[in-house]
Amino acid sequence: MVYPDTAEGFMIEDQKKWQDFKKQEFKLKPFEDRDIDIAVEACGVCGSDVHTITGGWGDCPLPICVGHEIVGKAIKVGKDVKTIKVGDRVGVGAQIQADLTCNNCKADQENYCPNAVDTYGAPYKDGTIAQGGYSSHVRAHEYFTFKIPDNISSEIAAPMLCAGLTVYSPLVRLGAGPGKKVAIVGMGGLGHFAVLWAAALGAEVYVLSHSPSKKDDALKMGAKHFIVTNDEDWHKPYAFNFDFILNCADATHKFNLKDYFSTLKVMGRFHTVGFGDHPLPTLMAQDFAPNGCYIGASHIGNRPEMLAMFDLASKQEIQSWIQTVDISEEGCKEAVTAVSENKVRYRYVLTGYDKVFGKRD
Amino acid sequence: MVYPDTAEGFMIEDQKKWQDFKKQEFKLKPFEDRDIDIAVEACGVCGSDVHTITGGWGDCPLPICVGHEIVGKAIKVGKDVKTIKVGDRVGVGAQIQADLTCNNCKADQENYCPNAVDTYGAPYKDGTIAQGGYSSHVRAHEYFTFKIPDNISSEIAAPMLCAGLTVYSPLVRLGAGPGKKVAIVGMGGLGHFAVLWAAALGAEVYVLSHSPSKKDDALKMGAKHFIVTNDEDWHKPYAFNFDFILNCADATHKFNLKDYFSTLKVMGRFHTVGFGDHPLPTLMAQDFAPNGCYIGASHIGNRPEMLAMFDLASKQEIQSWIQTVDISEEGCKEAVTAVSENKVRYRYVLTGYDKVFGKRD
Repeated sequence: MVYPDTAEGFMIEDQKKWQDFKKQEFKLKPFEDRDIDIAVEACGVCGSDVHTITGGWGDCPLPICVGHEIVGKAIKVGKDVKTIKVGDRVGVGAQIQADLTCNNCKADQENYCPNAVDTYGAPYKDGTIAQGGYSSHVRAHEYFTFKIPDNISSEIAAPMLCAGLTVYSPLVRLGAGPGKKVAIVGMGGLGHFAVLWAAALGAEVYVLSHSPSKKDDALKMGAKHFIVTNDEDWHKPYAFNFDFILNCADATHKFNLKDYFSTLKVMGRFHTVGFGDHPLPTLMAQDFAPNGCYIGASHIGNRPEMLAMFDLASKQEIQSWIQTVDISEEGCKEAVTAVSENKVRYRYVLTGYDKVFGKRD
Repeated sequence: MVYPDTAEGFMIEDQKKWQDFKKQEFKLKPFEDRDIDIAVEACGVCGSDVHTITGGWGDCPLPICVGHEIVGKAIKVGKDVKTIKVGDRVGVGAQIQADLTCNNCKADQENYCPNAVDTYGAPYKDGTIAQGGYSSHVRAHEYFTFKIPDNISSEIAAPMLCAGLTVYSPLVRLGAGPGKKVAIVGMGGLGHFAVLWAAALGAEVYVLSHSPSKKDDALKMGAKHFIVTNDEDWHKPYAFNFDFILNCADATHKFNLKDYFSTLKVMGRFHTVGFGDHPLPTLMAQDFAPNGCYIGASHIGNRPEMLAMFDLASKQEIQSWIQTVDISEEGCKEAVTAVSENKVRYRYVLTGYDKVFGKRD
């Protein structure tokens, strides 16, 4: 079989051999009336990809093709698709389907739909496993397919689709804007977007990082302050200071959370988007009491937020900070290894798809 | 020495002998211009008292006189006191002082003042240790002294001053009111007030309890629904149902928190006011992801909330559900033992102060 029944992707067969990508064929879900087929041309390499293939987040269906920061060209659209036409440059993030009928979906909370389908590693109703964007083609539902603004290149747009949205959504929901002091913890793929967006939204941005090595970058991205959390008593000058903390680190299990909590205003939130492989540090209920604070998390964002994020990036000409590598068995290995070792500044993006998959239109 | 330099109270000398109350003299803080001296006539027996005297919350200064749900008569007022006059019936809760100048105090968040003084077991600036209401007299700052409405008796008012306010504050801050579905976990001293207030505020109240034994009481207090959490899969019919959960239990360490979280609407909060002796169950950041929820806590409430709570109780004629016992070494022992064994429905209140301390005016 070949496309349109199947696609080809760089896949992992064994979580113990998570750097061994092999180009393989996989089945696409049956094409439906609101589906769009995309010939992929760029895909960001997300921390989720590494947590999935290494087994850090547990088992996954194998073989698996990861990648959920996907940009490419629409080459086929279902008869009921209204927002995308063949030839459009489009993107897909970490969610590819929802029931669109439940109370959450009707309230623009489709990212919390109990029948959501993740872009890879999740079963569709017919049993087909969704596969990601380290591949020739992705078949996506229109609601989860987004037109990319003309002034944002595919490789710059790709990591916005998961990392960008994942921080954009809590930033706007928690009110980042003029007059607000926002702390961003962890200057990685997620964190660098958090700084870019929070600054673009008008907030006063503080970056909290365990080392000073990324200070210059943080200030260039729009941060006003840079706090090194390895310094003893780093938190003391910032008691009751931040409206909220957006935690983009996935090493939260090593944090003294009470120090972080102490920097929040009354009822402030320590909001996590970094999902590590380990539990949070042990907490007492009374650890929240000195300022009535909260800890919580969120899962990506909704369609209106994705559209607003691209609008903001387009209007303010905000660029992701990326490094590109051509997709191949070696290229995928290089990228996931760098992510795993925390050596990326600030996002790997796989490119050069035509060289291995041909033109595909 | 005697009053006004000292007071007498039923005190604990050793956390290992937390049921051995002895009537002793203790020093009062120096009288200042906004202070009020209160001849105590009723005091609620709070879970905090038991956590303190047993050492469940750690060490405390000894000997200690606990009790922070205090009602009595103002018998002396400082020259700058404007809101209370001698003879008024007044109450004091769990906080007795704050700096009243910091940003938190200026924002009506004095319950989060970094220089707050707890009603018992905390040092004043001069080194005197504040002592609570199992005693003849309490000396309190005007800002933390509240006139009791005429139609609320002293023993009914007493437990409102800590338990009542502790749940009233998060209920109003989280928006309890018409159209909101509010879950109350734990039908003890705190929980019974949570049901009374939430119903009075117009919310649809669900009580979650590990056993059905308090169902009739809960419905009489105004709950519409009663859910027994020992039933397997109790949470499944309530997915995405509650605007927030107010957790009044102090056995949260035994909960499967993910089950509770699953019943929250998107971005809903699991708000704790029950501070147990044990850490919360282990949590992963991703446990919050299915609905973007939060866990947190609060510490009592502020002055405007205390005034609003008494106004609500007075207008709607809401009664605390209490049992009274005369204050004495035996009476204090009976009350704290019952609290420790979870056998109170729903608050012990110490009364009969004149019998052991005389008239005091």
